[in-house]
Amino acid sequence: MINRFLKRRGQIRRYAIKQQFDAVLISNPINVRYLTGFTGGDSYLIIGRSDDLLLSDTRFTIQVEEECLGLDAYFRSASEPLTQAVGRTLGKTTSGKLAIEAGSLTLAKYDRIVQELPLWTMVSTQNLVEELRQIKDSSERQSIRKAIDTASLAFFALKKFITPERSEIDIRNELEHRMRLYGAEDKSFPTIIGAGARAALPHGSPSSQKLAGQSHLLIDWGAITNGYMSDLTRVAIFAKKDKKLRTIYEIVLKAQEAAIRAIRPGKRCHEIDAVARSVISDAGHGKHFNHGLGHSFGLEIHESPRFSAGDRTILKAGMVMTVEPGIYLKGWGGVRIEDDILVTKTGCEVLSRFIPKSFDEICCLF
Amino acid sequence: MINRFLKRRGQIRRYAIKQQFDAVLISNPINVRYLTGFTGGDSYLIIGRSDDLLLSDTRFTIQVEEECLGLDAYFRSASEPLTQAVGRTLGKTTSGKLAIEAGSLTLAKYDRIVQELPLWTMVSTQNLVEELRQIKDSSERQSIRKAIDTASLAFFALKKFITPERSEIDIRNELEHRMRLYGAEDKSFPTIIGAGARAALPHGSPSSQKLAGQSHLLIDWGAITNGYMSDLTRVAIFAKKDKKLRTIYEIVLKAQEAAIRAIRPGKRCHEIDAVARSVISDAGHGKHFNHGLGHSFGLEIHESPRFSAGDRTILKAGMVMTVEPGIYLKGWGGVRIEDDILVTKTGCEVLSRFIPKSFDEICCLF
Repeated sequence: MINRFLKRRGQIRRYAIKQQFDAVLISNPINVRYLTGFTGGDSYLIIGRSDDLLLSDTRFTIQVEEECLGLDAYFRSASEPLTQAVGRTLGKTTSGKLAIEAGSLTLAKYDRIVQELPLWTMVSTQNLVEELRQIKDSSERQSIRKAIDTASLAFFALKKFITPERSEIDIRNELEHRMRLYGAEDKSFPTIIGAGARAALPHGSPSSQKLAGQSHLLIDWGAITNGYMSDLTRVAIFAKKDKKLRTIYEIVLKAQEAAIRAIRPGKRCHEIDAVARSVISDAGHGKHFNHGLGHSFGLEIHESPRFSAGDRTILKAGMVMTVEPGIYLKGWGGVRIEDDILVTKTGCEVLSRFIPKSFDEICCLF
Repeated sequence: MINRFLKRRGQIRRYAIKQQFDAVLISNPINVRYLTGFTGGDSYLIIGRSDDLLLSDTRFTIQVEEECLGLDAYFRSASEPLTQAVGRTLGKTTSGKLAIEAGSLTLAKYDRIVQELPLWTMVSTQNLVEELRQIKDSSERQSIRKAIDTASLAFFALKKFITPERSEIDIRNELEHRMRLYGAEDKSFPTIIGAGARAALPHGSPSSQKLAGQSHLLIDWGAITNGYMSDLTRVAIFAKKDKKLRTIYEIVLKAQEAAIRAIRPGKRCHEIDAVARSVISDAGHGKHFNHGLGHSFGLEIHESPRFSAGDRTILKAGMVMTVEPGIYLKGWGGVRIEDDILVTKTGCEVLSRFIPKSFDEICCLF
């Protein structure tokens, strides 16, 4: 545990020294967690040329002791703002070059830190820690696998629960409770549940609409275990003989399978997006697939890189991504199929492969 | 519904015109929701001198239509960053003064917007919308009351569930599921559950520790309804004859009741904090009460103002706040009692008054 965090901080430190930074201020709470193991909030990490310091507060003294063995910490009182603690720690009289996280630090906090450190030069950095986080180490992959398994078990348990008199909200409540009972710390994002025409809202909230009379139900859900997430989508099919539904479903599935086959180290993210998009466009539904093909995830549900037209990132072994094409027809409904994959040395492993996804198998589930 | 959002935008517009801003860019998603009713993400609102424009994306076309009747919207494609949409909308060739939200806009996004609008002057604002949000209107108060009632019902339902073989995690799972079954959209924050010595972690996560043999259990929880939150804490007492526990509990309760009696419009927030703090300090536990007395809440769980030593905000009717003193003794445990209050014209109303809190009543509950 400790070595993992020390190792990560060492990587940032070596980069900082190379760039001639005197210190790096980690203000994004997810990055603080990634580099220290600390799961609380309102804390910054300072990575110096030779040592590290967690700036936390007195609410967290016991928690820091438990979670961050061997890491030095300064505990501010409730009355001292975090930005002031930065000034106190780095010293108002010394000078140096401080790297800050421009992608998460607010303009207001930045201005206050500049005031606290009049002799320091600020250097904006972006994606410094996020780039490390792109490649998941073995402990991270293990947590993600567990998050996928937990979410999968909860999905299978819906089989008996899904009946015509249930509403979208009922399904959400049951699914999220099941994930908890199977060991999830929480859901990884607010579950999306859309029946029939409401499945065309790619990020809609569940409503009190009942399943009775609906042709299909889109479920987009995930679990958190050890802080790591999963992100899955399946469509439950009720109208097994609905030809249009089968046709749309099979286009989406074909697009997803083609994209998954194309994934391997060395390919660029936008190329994978293009593979799925061309299948859907060729079938005449290009403009009904109005979002990116997928995204990386881990401690956050949306991480870089993304499978999108504009992302030229080169895939590397150890990246974990969603592959989730969809077709949405206003007034009719929508189909999205989403799996989680790990980029391997030779291609990819579909981590969520135990959840069936052919039209006929999905029909049998419900 | 519509009038409420129009009215709020009108308040911002009038302020902007007075300050000679040509437009205000609302980038904080909670503020976007407060001013438009839009519950999706990745969207900005531009308030101009005469009209408003929501910058959203094509995933949300249907949702914006449903939620924001009468509001103009621009839907960017997946490939156009939100900051670029700002440039496109405000025009690269026109000039003016643009107010931005420095408290939530990241430095990186700010820099990109500056690049997009080379002829515009940026003006930092802070708490522009947050200040409006301090006073809850009748529809907001109704949602908060509902969120409190939902959380209360779920708490009462724990009575039968709490047995020695249950773990902290079991209690959390049941409580959060119950809130859902009673109508909550979600929990308002990750529930804090700490038994015995673990109750000394003011923001600890529930563990697999069982209740057997523990003297007490701290539960800090809340529900969301219509986007609005509640925030409550009670201590379940198992060791009814534990004199130290009774003594500590009664100091905290006395501090809380004194603070509640002191609340009325015209008082300053730090004065209310001081009332509770002096009761606890007089009892010799000043340094064991290591957080502020309370905070405002609404669409977010922590809003301004706060009952803390440094907050000189004057209380006004319509503010909704928590009052939550605590005493935490490392290795022994902790007691916190938290209610939600509405500042009224003459004092305050304890919105969560139906949940008992005297030591003897709490003993009877479990």
